[in-house]
Amino acid sequence: MKWIGVVDTMFSRVNMGEIALEALAAKPDRGQRFDVVRRTVPGFKDLAVEAQLLIQSHGCAIVLVMGMPGAEAVDQICAHEASLGVMAAKLRTSTHILEAFVHESEAGGDEAQLAAICRDRCAKHALNAYDMLFDPGSLVARAGGGVRQGFADAGRVKVEA
Amino acid sequence: MKWIGVVDTMFSRVNMGEIALEALAAKPDRGQRFDVVRRTVPGFKDLAVEAQLLIQSHGCAIVLVMGMPGAEAVDQICAHEASLGVMAAKLRTSTHILEAFVHESEAGGDEAQLAAICRDRCAKHALNAYDMLFDPGSLVARAGGGVRQGFADAGRVKVEA
Amino acid sequence: MKWIGVVDTMFSRVNMGEIALEALAAKPDRGQRFDVVRRTVPGFKDLAVEAQLLIQSHGCAIVLVMGMPGAEAVDQICAHEASLGVMAAKLRTSTHILEAFVHESEAGGDEAQLAAICRDRCAKHALNAYDMLFDPGSLVARAGGGVRQGFADAGRVKVEA
Amino acid sequence: MKWIGVVDTMFSRVNMGEIALEALAAKPDRGQRFDVVRRTVPGFKDLAVEAQLLIQSHGCAIVLVMGMPGAEAVDQICAHEASLGVMAAKLRTSTHILEAFVHESEAGGDEAQLAAICRDRCAKHALNAYDMLFDPGSLVARAGGGVRQGFADAGRVKVEA
Amino acid sequence: MKWIGVVDTMFSRVNMGEIALEALAAKPDRGQRFDVVRRTVPGFKDLAVEAQLLIQSHGCAIVLVMGMPGAEAVDQICAHEASLGVMAAKLRTSTHILEAFVHESEAGGDEAQLAAICRDRCAKHALNAYDMLFDPGSLVARAGGGVRQGFADAGRVKVEA
Repeated sequence: MKWIGVVDTMFSRVNMGEIALEALAAKPDRGQRFDVVRRTVPGFKDLAVEAQLLIQSHGCAIVLVMGMPGAEAVDQICAHEASLGVMAAKLRTSTHILEAFVHESEAGGDEAQLAAICRDRCAKHALNAYDMLFDPGSLVARAGGGVRQGFADAGRVKVEA
Repeated sequence: MKWIGVVDTMFSRVNMGEIALEALAAKPDRGQRFDVVRRTVPGFKDLAVEAQLLIQSHGCAIVLVMGMPGAEAVDQICAHEASLGVMAAKLRTSTHILEAFVHESEAGGDEAQLAAICRDRCAKHALNAYDMLFDPGSLVARAGGGVRQGFADAGRVKVEA
Repeated sequence: MKWIGVVDTMFSRVNMGEIALEALAAKPDRGQRFDVVRRTVPGFKDLAVEAQLLIQSHGCAIVLVMGMPGAEAVDQICAHEASLGVMAAKLRTSTHILEAFVHESEAGGDEAQLAAICRDRCAKHALNAYDMLFDPGSLVARAGGGVRQGFADAGRVKVEA
Repeated sequence: MKWIGVVDTMFSRVNMGEIALEALAAKPDRGQRFDVVRRTVPGFKDLAVEAQLLIQSHGCAIVLVMGMPGAEAVDQICAHEASLGVMAAKLRTSTHILEAFVHESEAGGDEAQLAAICRDRCAKHALNAYDMLFDPGSLVARAGGGVRQGFADAGRVKVEA
Repeated sequence: MKWIGVVDTMFSRVNMGEIALEALAAKPDRGQRFDVVRRTVPGFKDLAVEAQLLIQSHGCAIVLVMGMPGAEAVDQICAHEASLGVMAAKLRTSTHILEAFVHESEAGGDEAQLAAICRDRCAKHALNAYDMLFDPGSLVARAGGGVRQGFADAGRVKVEA
């Protein structure tokens, strides 16, 4: 059985971890082929090391980290630092860590919209994590498909032979 | 017994380390379940390696680093470098290092306000460090709660089921 | 026989991996001196660790990673993070990883142009990967040649002796 | 006996290494408790690896690196790269490396002012290096003191109990 | 005998490697105390790993890497990534890697000027590499001298005793 790690933050205004847990709970092979472990950290700059710990100490085969950068300029720099940390944790562990960040500014101040983006992005990335473990061919089939999380897909541009 | 490391700077205009020490001293299990070691470095770019040393040489289970970026443009770049260093130290040691930075500009030149932000942020992060060691479930319970340090919480946005 | 890795993304709007595969399939020594392994990941921030995995676990001698940054400001920061990850993966593995990114903004909204840039850049970098393995002298011969991928070469500036 | 490393650059317009050497030569225990080794590199992007070499090969217990970023925009990016390198060298060696950079723009074109900033900042950081080795408690006593190098101290802001 | 590595790019519009080779060929002890190995890579983001390979696999004691960032905004970000990679390669190998980048914009569109800057900067850095191996004291003698490559020296600012 493989472990999928799910890490979110207290700082986020939406319970992103719960969304991911629900998406994965709907899989019929939950508890047989995989199970989920969840952690919460204070803010998104704490996600990288928690993901690394889940891989190193808990044996997770993949981790999904979720956070919500605020709307201030300093929040963008912090999000950049958080992402660089997640990138470094992937390379240190040679393990995929999917990053689902929802910037508060994406919703333009509309809380229902904010929740909708979180629901879509976190659920889709949870399913991506599942596919990367158990059905990598399905990703190749979608290569170049303009696939998006949080919004509708952007669509494919054909290359003339 | 576990060690909590506390590192602050000479550059900061507020004695941030003392605030953290006081918050942790109020815990009844101080000296039984945990104790605190404190260091001071010249500036915030020296925090990361000192935190790493406290983990590697002193055996700290978690470290709280505190600094106060100045208001100049170059200070923002230095703060970014300092934060990237803290991030790298976390991943090198597989240990949480909580970062409590108070930008001097956050207080708009009001020294009492500056002290108040420091007091709130440093104390709350000191308690976060404690909870991460001894009560990680309390963080999961607050996931997505819009929890803030230095200011009031931003509040939770509900996701419709 | 040497393995050349090819990694692209679901996020890209063009099937970049297919372009690279076709360019390499035209080589007469395909299947004798080298063969190709292909992977697809969700987005370009997942390319670095996948390339590292292809080197560490699949034994690739070189990897070509391809992605398509979107036109938003946040996409530029993500592209920077993705590139820093690719850089780090190169140094961790002491192996060349060629990066072929096509910014959606390069085509000014013209989808045919977008496809044309992808076709040129991905195919040329696939051939660069081949030359780096089997004919490094051909790169020295082109040193300082103003060689471009995705557009016409910029040309050589002579230095007076 | 402990070694203090001092590294400066040919690029700088002020002999910063000499200032540091003089500050440390004034210590009565020079030659007994500590001695100084000095290196010069072409530019500030060469400081990090030289500091690392002084720690790894010469056994330095602490290193002071000094450089002078020019006034052009590209110089600021290079200074950022140089600082990130110094940060990484600290973490790789688990050793403090104090960074004394004087931006040419800090002096507003006044060469006497430029020299004065260098003299103050380099000498104070040389003494900080000494204190970190032999009197770390003196840093704790100055925690939150608004201590500056290159200019007068910014002063302490009291926190009401 | 020591090896000096020289790495340049196909992207550059000037044959920078050739300039470095000529500068080093003029040294009378070439072939006795040192010899030169040269590589060419596609672009400047490939320089860092090639330099690392020359150190790790070819035993180079120092490497000179040369590249020419284009004039577009994205080129500046790529140059930053390339430089961060070179910095990381230095620290991974504990070996100096001198970076000679000539931004195409430095010449303001004048190709003769572009070639002249390349000739000056690449040749001077080739000689710096030689001096760092065989005459490090000559660098200390030039400390704080305002030494430049690509342009005339900026000159020394005296510090009053």
